[in-house]
Amino acid sequence: MLDALGRHGIPIRATAQGSSERNISVVVRSSEADRAIRYIHNEFFDRSPLKDINLFITGYGTVGKALVDIIRRNGDAVAARTGKRLRIAGIADSRRYVLDPEGIAPERAGELLAQGLSAADDAWTEALAHTSLENSVFVDCTASADIACRYASLFRHGYSVVACNKIAFSAPLAQYRALRKAALESGAGLRYETTVGAALPVLESVASCVCSGDRIHRVEAVLSGTLNYIFSTYDGGKSVTFAEVVRQAVEKGYAEPDPRIDLSGRDVLRKLLILGREAGAALEEGDVEAEPLLPQEYFRGSVEDFYKALEDNEKSFAEQFLQAASRGLRLRFVASLERVPLSGDESSGASPCRWKARIALEALSPEHPLYSLEGTDNTVILTTDFYPSPLVIRGAGAGAYQTASGVLNDILK
Amino acid sequence: MLDALGRHGIPIRATAQGSSERNISVVVRSSEADRAIRYIHNEFFDRSPLKDINLFITGYGTVGKALVDIIRRNGDAVAARTGKRLRIAGIADSRRYVLDPEGIAPERAGELLAQGLSAADDAWTEALAHTSLENSVFVDCTASADIACRYASLFRHGYSVVACNKIAFSAPLAQYRALRKAALESGAGLRYETTVGAALPVLESVASCVCSGDRIHRVEAVLSGTLNYIFSTYDGGKSVTFAEVVRQAVEKGYAEPDPRIDLSGRDVLRKLLILGREAGAALEEGDVEAEPLLPQEYFRGSVEDFYKALEDNEKSFAEQFLQAASRGLRLRFVASLERVPLSGDESSGASPCRWKARIALEALSPEHPLYSLEGTDNTVILTTDFYPSPLVIRGAGAGAYQTASGVLNDILK
Repeated sequence: MLDALGRHGIPIRATAQGSSERNISVVVRSSEADRAIRYIHNEFFDRSPLKDINLFITGYGTVGKALVDIIRRNGDAVAARTGKRLRIAGIADSRRYVLDPEGIAPERAGELLAQGLSAADDAWTEALAHTSLENSVFVDCTASADIACRYASLFRHGYSVVACNKIAFSAPLAQYRALRKAALESGAGLRYETTVGAALPVLESVASCVCSGDRIHRVEAVLSGTLNYIFSTYDGGKSVTFAEVVRQAVEKGYAEPDPRIDLSGRDVLRKLLILGREAGAALEEGDVEAEPLLPQEYFRGSVEDFYKALEDNEKSFAEQFLQAASRGLRLRFVASLERVPLSGDESSGASPCRWKARIALEALSPEHPLYSLEGTDNTVILTTDFYPSPLVIRGAGAGAYQTASGVLNDILK
Repeated sequence: MLDALGRHGIPIRATAQGSSERNISVVVRSSEADRAIRYIHNEFFDRSPLKDINLFITGYGTVGKALVDIIRRNGDAVAARTGKRLRIAGIADSRRYVLDPEGIAPERAGELLAQGLSAADDAWTEALAHTSLENSVFVDCTASADIACRYASLFRHGYSVVACNKIAFSAPLAQYRALRKAALESGAGLRYETTVGAALPVLESVASCVCSGDRIHRVEAVLSGTLNYIFSTYDGGKSVTFAEVVRQAVEKGYAEPDPRIDLSGRDVLRKLLILGREAGAALEEGDVEAEPLLPQEYFRGSVEDFYKALEDNEKSFAEQFLQAASRGLRLRFVASLERVPLSGDESSGASPCRWKARIALEALSPEHPLYSLEGTDNTVILTTDFYPSPLVIRGAGAGAYQTASGVLNDILK
């Protein structure tokens, strides 16, 4: 009973309990008596086995919308299956926010957000700090550095965080560690499976290896569906030029409208950082040996300049492709992580080692498991003590519904 | 404060709180005053961010021992990483049990168990019913039907259950459903990822699909490392007979000492049932179309009779192999599940369907992702709305440390 009152912020002025242990009396402000009675009634008589999970969703773009849509269509089924009732208690985009502790109907989410309060001047985070609900999860579906900075403060206000935003986890190591520490110390959840390979269970598998004292020897991965599409579609200029393949990727929605974001390899670099840190590697961005796909000068100027540069250099792309093809090899953009033991003592899982992290375009032979990878799929290959024949996870590593599904999975954990 | 006392079972005879809201008094039995003070002190001043997870491990065979060993070697690292301190509060095998709410040192587990109390007459479950610790997880590392029957009663006593024991989940559907319902209603956790493919994230991926309203169209899987070893090693009698391959599998520890357990296909059938039910299919054992690998008469008599029967029938094994090989195919023992829509309306994820479940030896072409599967690996291939190019999970699907690692992962969720 005291729990129920405390949870809803009703101060108790005095209590008394008789020696019979059969009654307990509390004194509350008369203006709060009605609410108090309701909460106490719910506590004792509304023993629904359902646990409400209050979601505060930031970012209402493709992923945020897909998540709200999944909750609309499947919320009841999730509740029946897991005992967790997903309640959207707040939504924000970069301009507005709407907050309703009683729950926002998913089908009205867009409309209510459009009529919401201004999110300027941190009003949204201020509002969150003053909202105190049980089982509150802050869901970051943005790519914003500003939002990423707020996780630690949200932990202190009782929020767990589920993010598909990569910024906080690919930040400088000290910042990343401070964030994990803050989550641990406040007892808050912090999950971000979708930052690497969307809903594919990649980080989870790495974490499971580490927790069980298994020793990871090598990780090899294709972490960009866009780049995989480009390199598995390009045929050395026979039917299509490299610039045309890139244009296709943009048209099909596989690449960002500005394809340089994908072709710079920066996205893959971030994912490898996150994956490596999950594996226990103290990696900074500068520790990753990155062979740029294209020279720096390609990235100056406009998008059209970029396509022009690609066209001008078709000959060198074709050469690279044909050189590999003539040896029976295929080009794949591979992110890899290798454990290099520092001492001769290999008996303990905790033996000192350093990690070699690398992203580069590699020419792979048919025996390599990444050789046959087509389309926009991602693949992660983990070689460990327990998995000498590696653990392989493969599938779509991007997409609004795939990512939202992974976010939901993180929320339900 | 009242929480702390309640949790440790100290009855409060009377309470009083002054109107200043600065003090609260409670009356407890004088014999319990010391304990009460200690618990209250811990509650307010020992705010260690670590949460104790109390484990009651049943079954101290290869998996149970591996789990205890992992906790011994890696418990501190797990605590530092996850904030969860794993404490072994009880261990039992079929003969004895040992219980210590203060925690059993993992390095002494075997020794203490050997000196433990007799587990006859349900003494172990009786003892569990009278042990009330927070965050109690009952870990079933047995293959016992007796133990599987007790989960529901354990839920009522506040235990969550993590099992690698397949019995409860491949039981008749009504029993399986009652168990899931009991877990939901009591708010207890019930996890059994390792019943299919050991630590491979198979059930989790299926559950994630279902929760996000994704629609599973097809599951194809090799769920027996033993059978995969046998069929990927057998070469039609060129270098080795079928009976010899089976003997090798037993010698290498891939198959049970009585290889008929694996060759009957019963283990795969159970795994497919569990996987199918996780996908939402209301499957009974009899609904699975099972093509037996070997005629029923092979399974009568002794193990030696069985080997004799295999030897006598080498010709038919060789024929089957060569027939497939001559068409460029390889034999794999495949478990599959297919969604068959019942109506024309395919727009909603919940549209009515029936499920076709099947286990059979299939001859696969090189294009099939299971064609290249060698050794004792398992593979699960999920084709869904979100994963038209399927989600593939591959790796060791058995082994003491792999399974224990998956059990640990379930415990930490």
